[in-house]
Amino acid sequence: MTASILVVGSLAYDDVRTPMDSRDGVLGGAASYFAMAASRYAPVRLVGVVGDDFDASDVERLRGAGIDLAGLERRDGTSFRWKGTYDFALDTAETINTDLGVFGDWRPTVPEKFASSELVFLANIDPEIQLATLAQVKAPRLVALDTMNYWIEHKRDALIDVMAKVDVVSINEAEARQLCETYSVVRAAREILDMGPTSLIVKRGEHGATLFTREFSFWAPAYPVEDIADPTGAGDTFAGGFLGALAESDAIDGAALKRAMLHGVVCSSFSVQSFSIDGMAAADRADIERRYEELRALITL
Amino acid sequence: MTASILVVGSLAYDDVRTPMDSRDGVLGGAASYFAMAASRYAPVRLVGVVGDDFDASDVERLRGAGIDLAGLERRDGTSFRWKGTYDFALDTAETINTDLGVFGDWRPTVPEKFASSELVFLANIDPEIQLATLAQVKAPRLVALDTMNYWIEHKRDALIDVMAKVDVVSINEAEARQLCETYSVVRAAREILDMGPTSLIVKRGEHGATLFTREFSFWAPAYPVEDIADPTGAGDTFAGGFLGALAESDAIDGAALKRAMLHGVVCSSFSVQSFSIDGMAAADRADIERRYEELRALITL
Repeated sequence: MTASILVVGSLAYDDVRTPMDSRDGVLGGAASYFAMAASRYAPVRLVGVVGDDFDASDVERLRGAGIDLAGLERRDGTSFRWKGTYDFALDTAETINTDLGVFGDWRPTVPEKFASSELVFLANIDPEIQLATLAQVKAPRLVALDTMNYWIEHKRDALIDVMAKVDVVSINEAEARQLCETYSVVRAAREILDMGPTSLIVKRGEHGATLFTREFSFWAPAYPVEDIADPTGAGDTFAGGFLGALAESDAIDGAALKRAMLHGVVCSSFSVQSFSIDGMAAADRADIERRYEELRALITL
Repeated sequence: MTASILVVGSLAYDDVRTPMDSRDGVLGGAASYFAMAASRYAPVRLVGVVGDDFDASDVERLRGAGIDLAGLERRDGTSFRWKGTYDFALDTAETINTDLGVFGDWRPTVPEKFASSELVFLANIDPEIQLATLAQVKAPRLVALDTMNYWIEHKRDALIDVMAKVDVVSINEAEARQLCETYSVVRAAREILDMGPTSLIVKRGEHGATLFTREFSFWAPAYPVEDIADPTGAGDTFAGGFLGALAESDAIDGAALKRAMLHGVVCSSFSVQSFSIDGMAAADRADIERRYEELRALITL
């Protein structure tokens, strides 16, 4: 039976610039991206906060994808807004402006009916808040977290604390290096696993993603996308596909984790082909399965 | 039966700087790196040129690896010398100095007894010289070439001409982008295949390498090396392992090409763990097979 997935994180309006195109005020935020991908696999519950400027049509869009929004708080004030730009490499965003709005002093409350969710994704937020959120969840089968360079620099101890309490840590290559102060991703991976999580996902953008565990490693290639429209949200969409695929697995073993890695890559490939959550929203399960098979072929001897 | 391999390219003395260490006057050059790797698989014939400063012990070292040096010319003057430095990322070298020496006006002569070699590697050199060299080889089963940014900039037409006449083009990611003036490696790959070669290898350094053909693609992961001593020669060593593995294959089909990709990665993993050709020279066939199995496990679902 498909397990339930809880995501706790941001919803935002993004202004995105790429060398080829731009969008203003489009739905973004880690929880939006994650939930849209995960909803293709499993029942998703979302805990987040938006301001009174949040458009009813965006609420309907998420709800229409089957996402349970009982944990979505609406507060007086403005929604999280982020403005970022990408150069021609289309990999790392340069932030032009961040306005946290109501997200700034938000402390997530996990509704009682979400507390027994089986899989949990703690999207990027202050690690102390991740820890407080985790305390509100009862005996999940698996917890994954994402983080960012800011917390590595400013809340390193709290981050290491919460990392020790989760099952899966998902970060990008630069963050892995930064966290362990080494250029060697292989060494960083070993050190991060020593901190406590059973699995580490190192996201490598157009080079795919690598899963490290104490028992084995697995290299997922990138799905070959010829034209990338907007890489925003690719990592959270990856996490959505990853936990989504795990939600369908009876056992969370090596085979399930590897399959989930490929689903993460597939989902992020849809995401980067459009702005906002449009790419993932347009992909149905048959589209996902088609790309999964194409991706699998890329590593089949 | 194992096929014979011909390599035409540079032998050099390198001065190499990394943030951790340095070496002066160590044996380098594309043909040295390639030949040492390929010699682990098949009979290798080398066509190259050195100056009167070239040490007899280096000749013996190559000969001792079973490399046929009947095509090694010794001329009055100095051997090719290259001085380069790497920053902490240990990926792309910055050239401090190049002194071509006797390599500068060299025109390779393929000895008659090498002319029927079955597999041929045209290492990085002026594409007009690659073309003239190719004309001296009779009906090889497969020809691969490597090139560099300099020829893309300065001899683009000649390069495209010789690329159309070979089977495998091996370049790095940045060169693929530069050649096709696009950031999308996927698009660049398609365009390069349209130029004529049946296979394109895009080398991605610590991210492995990708094989593109008109029928299929294959993503080889990198072998996880924790401490990289010196990346010099990794690409040529890759090519040596790649052609070496093909030399052992009865048919050069998709399965053989994929297996060869993994052997290329394995050989380059040995190479980067030491300066000069020392890493590859220290690896025997059993070491290679062990890493091959480890690498295969990284992409086994």
